[in-house]
Amino acid sequence: MSVNVVKFTKLRTTIDPTFWAKFAELKVDKLRLDDKSQIKLWGRYSFDVPEIEKNNPLVLDYMSFNENVESNSINNSIICYGYMVNTNTYEAFRKINPQDFIDSIGKCIINDIMSGAALAEPWKLAVFLIFSYADLKTYRFHYWVAHPTPLSLPEMYFEKIQKSINDNFMVDQFDKLYEGFQQLDYKQKSFFSVFVFDEENIKVDTLNEGIKYINAQESTVGTDCEVYFAFYNPCKRLLEPGWQLRNLLCLLFWHCSTFCFTKSIQILSLNRDDFKTAVVYTLKCKEYAEQEIVKKSIFDSHLVGWEHNENGKMGPQIVDLSEILDPNKLAEKAINLNLKLMKWRLVPDLDLEKISNLKCLLLGAGTLGCSVARVLIGWGISNITFVDKSIVSHSNTVRQSLFIHEDAVKRKFKVDAAKDALLRIRPTMNVHGIKLQIPMPGHVVGQSMLNTTKEAVKELKDAIAGNDVVFLLLDSREARWLPTLLCAAMNKITINAALGFDSYMVQRHGVRNLTDIPVSNVTSQNPDGKNLGCYFCNDITQPGNSQTDRTLDQQCTVSRPGLSQIAAGLAVELMIAITQHSQGLEAKALAAGIKNNVNSNIKDNTLEGLLGGVPHTIRGSLWGYESYLTITHRFSSCTACSIPLISEYQKRGFEFILDACNIPNYLEKLCGLEELLKRPDLDELCSSIDASSEEE
Amino acid sequence: MSVNVVKFTKLRTTIDPTFWAKFAELKVDKLRLDDKSQIKLWGRYSFDVPEIEKNNPLVLDYMSFNENVESNSINNSIICYGYMVNTNTYEAFRKINPQDFIDSIGKCIINDIMSGAALAEPWKLAVFLIFSYADLKTYRFHYWVAHPTPLSLPEMYFEKIQKSINDNFMVDQFDKLYEGFQQLDYKQKSFFSVFVFDEENIKVDTLNEGIKYINAQESTVGTDCEVYFAFYNPCKRLLEPGWQLRNLLCLLFWHCSTFCFTKSIQILSLNRDDFKTAVVYTLKCKEYAEQEIVKKSIFDSHLVGWEHNENGKMGPQIVDLSEILDPNKLAEKAINLNLKLMKWRLVPDLDLEKISNLKCLLLGAGTLGCSVARVLIGWGISNITFVDKSIVSHSNTVRQSLFIHEDAVKRKFKVDAAKDALLRIRPTMNVHGIKLQIPMPGHVVGQSMLNTTKEAVKELKDAIAGNDVVFLLLDSREARWLPTLLCAAMNKITINAALGFDSYMVQRHGVRNLTDIPVSNVTSQNPDGKNLGCYFCNDITQPGNSQTDRTLDQQCTVSRPGLSQIAAGLAVELMIAITQHSQGLEAKALAAGIKNNVNSNIKDNTLEGLLGGVPHTIRGSLWGYESYLTITHRFSSCTACSIPLISEYQKRGFEFILDACNIPNYLEKLCGLEELLKRPDLDELCSSIDASSEEE
Repeated sequence: MSVNVVKFTKLRTTIDPTFWAKFAELKVDKLRLDDKSQIKLWGRYSFDVPEIEKNNPLVLDYMSFNENVESNSINNSIICYGYMVNTNTYEAFRKINPQDFIDSIGKCIINDIMSGAALAEPWKLAVFLIFSYADLKTYRFHYWVAHPTPLSLPEMYFEKIQKSINDNFMVDQFDKLYEGFQQLDYKQKSFFSVFVFDEENIKVDTLNEGIKYINAQESTVGTDCEVYFAFYNPCKRLLEPGWQLRNLLCLLFWHCSTFCFTKSIQILSLNRDDFKTAVVYTLKCKEYAEQEIVKKSIFDSHLVGWEHNENGKMGPQIVDLSEILDPNKLAEKAINLNLKLMKWRLVPDLDLEKISNLKCLLLGAGTLGCSVARVLIGWGISNITFVDKSIVSHSNTVRQSLFIHEDAVKRKFKVDAAKDALLRIRPTMNVHGIKLQIPMPGHVVGQSMLNTTKEAVKELKDAIAGNDVVFLLLDSREARWLPTLLCAAMNKITINAALGFDSYMVQRHGVRNLTDIPVSNVTSQNPDGKNLGCYFCNDITQPGNSQTDRTLDQQCTVSRPGLSQIAAGLAVELMIAITQHSQGLEAKALAAGIKNNVNSNIKDNTLEGLLGGVPHTIRGSLWGYESYLTITHRFSSCTACSIPLISEYQKRGFEFILDACNIPNYLEKLCGLEELLKRPDLDELCSSIDASSEEE
Repeated sequence: MSVNVVKFTKLRTTIDPTFWAKFAELKVDKLRLDDKSQIKLWGRYSFDVPEIEKNNPLVLDYMSFNENVESNSINNSIICYGYMVNTNTYEAFRKINPQDFIDSIGKCIINDIMSGAALAEPWKLAVFLIFSYADLKTYRFHYWVAHPTPLSLPEMYFEKIQKSINDNFMVDQFDKLYEGFQQLDYKQKSFFSVFVFDEENIKVDTLNEGIKYINAQESTVGTDCEVYFAFYNPCKRLLEPGWQLRNLLCLLFWHCSTFCFTKSIQILSLNRDDFKTAVVYTLKCKEYAEQEIVKKSIFDSHLVGWEHNENGKMGPQIVDLSEILDPNKLAEKAINLNLKLMKWRLVPDLDLEKISNLKCLLLGAGTLGCSVARVLIGWGISNITFVDKSIVSHSNTVRQSLFIHEDAVKRKFKVDAAKDALLRIRPTMNVHGIKLQIPMPGHVVGQSMLNTTKEAVKELKDAIAGNDVVFLLLDSREARWLPTLLCAAMNKITINAALGFDSYMVQRHGVRNLTDIPVSNVTSQNPDGKNLGCYFCNDITQPGNSQTDRTLDQQCTVSRPGLSQIAAGLAVELMIAITQHSQGLEAKALAAGIKNNVNSNIKDNTLEGLLGGVPHTIRGSLWGYESYLTITHRFSSCTACSIPLISEYQKRGFEFILDACNIPNYLEKLCGLEELLKRPDLDELCSSIDASSEEE
């Protein structure tokens, strides 16, 4: 064959979309603002590709970020490792100077060659580098990959190019070669040595052993065997092997330079794990007078190796994953993005998993129900159950933010329409709708309604039991009674919201625990959760039927349209703040008094959770744009949450609820309110209750 | 013909859906809570119906509520009048005793007969009554119609029944009859008299004239002519004329009882306005001994006349209009319902028309833009224009309440997706979307962007000019600069809202009027609109480019999801309150100070509008659930709204804006801020500005 100058083929990389998807996760969850770290990666040249014309690319995918190389890849691939640096902004990405970048980060190759680290672990001879900017809002990724190698290399010529199967090895030697190769560690497989003693004796060994042998020979005379330096060559052109060979030659020039400058170097170029298709290059260096200077210039030179982009130009690539990924999965990632960003700077300890796993029950799918659901999905909550018995009417759609005109035309049930709406927003949500009429005190249950009512109570009970949080968003006071009782009996996070014309109330119910009844302490300014009241703790009569004989303006929620959004926003944020308080529902109630009390020097740290304070009741008005934090203490004779009632419910179940609905004053008797109101100190009690209660 | 007891056919009524649609309007807009009034109605028996088997019904439609009878109806119909009583609740409807109702309200018939009023206006002989309950939430109307008539009537027999054309009148008399009938007033057409002197002389006259003649005859002897009492009979059965005849007979028994008890009464029963098809009944009363008692019993008896319902039973009817009306129109009515209900009790003077006619421009269709639009549609506002340049991304849908998954998949522009969403809710809305990038100070406009920028400025200017209210809901400070300037130059209601992580700010910009610059009064606790600042009045540097080099968490609105709903609710309610304040945008700013100032005995009434106070800036936080009202005074060197800037803009237009974008510190120079900051009292100024400003 004719003697030719050795040229090299540039390497190329294929980045699977899963690589970027995984990186997006890492960025959001772990790296966050970190733009300094060199992220360790591994990639592979797979043997499992069809024999095609093109050069085999370095493949990166979601596994590239794993700490350990996946075992299947070890068997079927040549493993490389690399570093990635990701900038936080597009501006920073554009400011990166590629030459500076490759010279500084790629320097590891030079260092590893000089230190011998690359001899111990030859995969260090073929490192790759990436710098990137991930626009996670649009799922566009900007990046540029390099395979660093010194720019200056002594000129090499091909002395011979031979197919291994014809000229260098006997057919029965291939098995031994293959076996030896397979026994190499994956870090040794990119570059290794082959010793041929005679036809019988042939051996695969590490690169280090080959060099040792060459250097030993320098000092002695005679040749015991032939040594081949083998490398994995992903490139197809016979006269232009891959850049791996450049780095191998650099290493040889450092560790056995005399040999390289003077002798023929036998290189075994392995294209797959099949030695039969391997090629043997016999290389010879151009004759140099100043060998030391030439050698030094290799390691003093700049590094090169940036890939061309898709347009064949030297420059970064852009990949737009939003076009590739499954829209549903993309949505899932994106939905969590804004939430995870909170952890970057603002609230690093925020327990998002706790929030997104919350199961929320919304009693009422009207104006408040729709608005509450909207804030919940904003928090990434995807388990939502609605309870409502109504049908969407035309007057609902402009105020109840989950419904559309068509729902009213089709007379859909609100719970069905709400479910459809949430699935239109986030197709993977887990939404349920329950159509039921909540039994209410004062709404007598006749014989004809007995079975339906029994079924309704069971469904409601099961729904509350199966959820973590219950929102009371119903349109009458008495409809909140049974849920209040059931939530107290099952000790659920209960959030109550109610609207007036231009005022609202948002409240968390106190903790109820039959086995741990606190001693009432009505003097505490910031009672803890066990001492906080429920919606009915202010009342001195049991709830009754307020729904008959109501005129149209009393039947409809006549309130300023902005009000429901405000109340719903507060209701959900209060609930979230509770979940992020170390004491949860038992946390002390934040009250405006403490904060404004300039005389108080003692700051009560237990008042604040990760997301701030957790008040008991927030009341506000659009008339004067005020809002107040108020507190209602637990009332031991409450007609909804007091212990006698809960006990009776637990004893008698549905029969108790039936009596509550049908028998006038049943609850007042049972909870001791009737007795209490007969006492001579009634006036005192009433005035103290009046003082703490407010009109809605 | 054989002699038969006279029986009568019950009347029936057809109520057109337009009757109820009109009534729904009246109820919501005028009657409101009124359930006492007897609503005056008129109905008609039309001649324009095909000759069919069935009895001709009394027709009520939307015109029935008009004060004046429609002229076309006068020519083609017999007009009746009636009363309607509408209850506010279903319970009240069910409590109505039909007998009591007809006896009390229907009593007018007896009274009108006795007083002679029915002689003067015979249409009073055929009054109809309705009681109803309108469920305007579901558009179901419950009602019952009666045609009152005394239960007891002397027994009457048919002496003769003759077709008028054969036996009583000559062919050439019909024209005269028709002509005479047509000349009667509509109140006289239901009941009238026909005088036949001889073949030549025939005359149509009022009922009163007929009775006068009969009574005159009583006292003299001999018969000059024959008198026929004519009435419109909507019923087809020959032997059972309509109940109109009952009332006519009652009247005759009252006004000429001797004649009725003793003589043959000639009745002309007119079925259409064609006398050729009329029937002549000759009636004779049963012989009674105690004529006076019989006569008295007529007028002492209960009234009867309730219609059967569709099921043939005595009971009310239900009509469900929601199945009949056009869904779009139904939606329109329903949408306004909740709003109109506000006027029933709560805010009778609320100017809903002013609100619904507002044209609102939303700059930014992101989290705030979507939430603001939702509150606007809740207020019945249907003219909304969005300005935004972005595409819906997957991370938007759970927080930006107008977008759905599909919008992100299809990569819709936000303004298009928002428009689609509003039309899904209310198909008749007038929504526009403008895709443009708002030019910003510090974002240099190069030559290549010149035309696009010029176009954008023009579009923005036109959009602001064409709207009444502008909401600044943009994602950066500097994007608000140009809209602030343009709104100041055009003096629009400008509402600004901005979000932090757990805090918000909502603000109205002060009034700017180049011809009426107020003397600055920074000491006023409640400055009026002219002395209030804009978003930039606190600044001592001009806005600059804050958007490059932002990390992901800085690019996305990282805020607690409930916050945008709260801020949007407040922003819209503030705007609405401004429109309902007698001084509008010039109203004094409500500040918490005044209200809590217990020392101040002077209550400032000008602070409150119909919907309460109108603060300048509302700031709130979810950390401690506080909200504050703060005030920023107008700053004469503001970098966005000061007079030098507005003047320069008005002089140089786009060139000025270009300089503001491209030349550093251009605005600071122009507004005098640069000069101001050089003055020796700088420290003082800065400290006073610092004291009044707050971090967002």
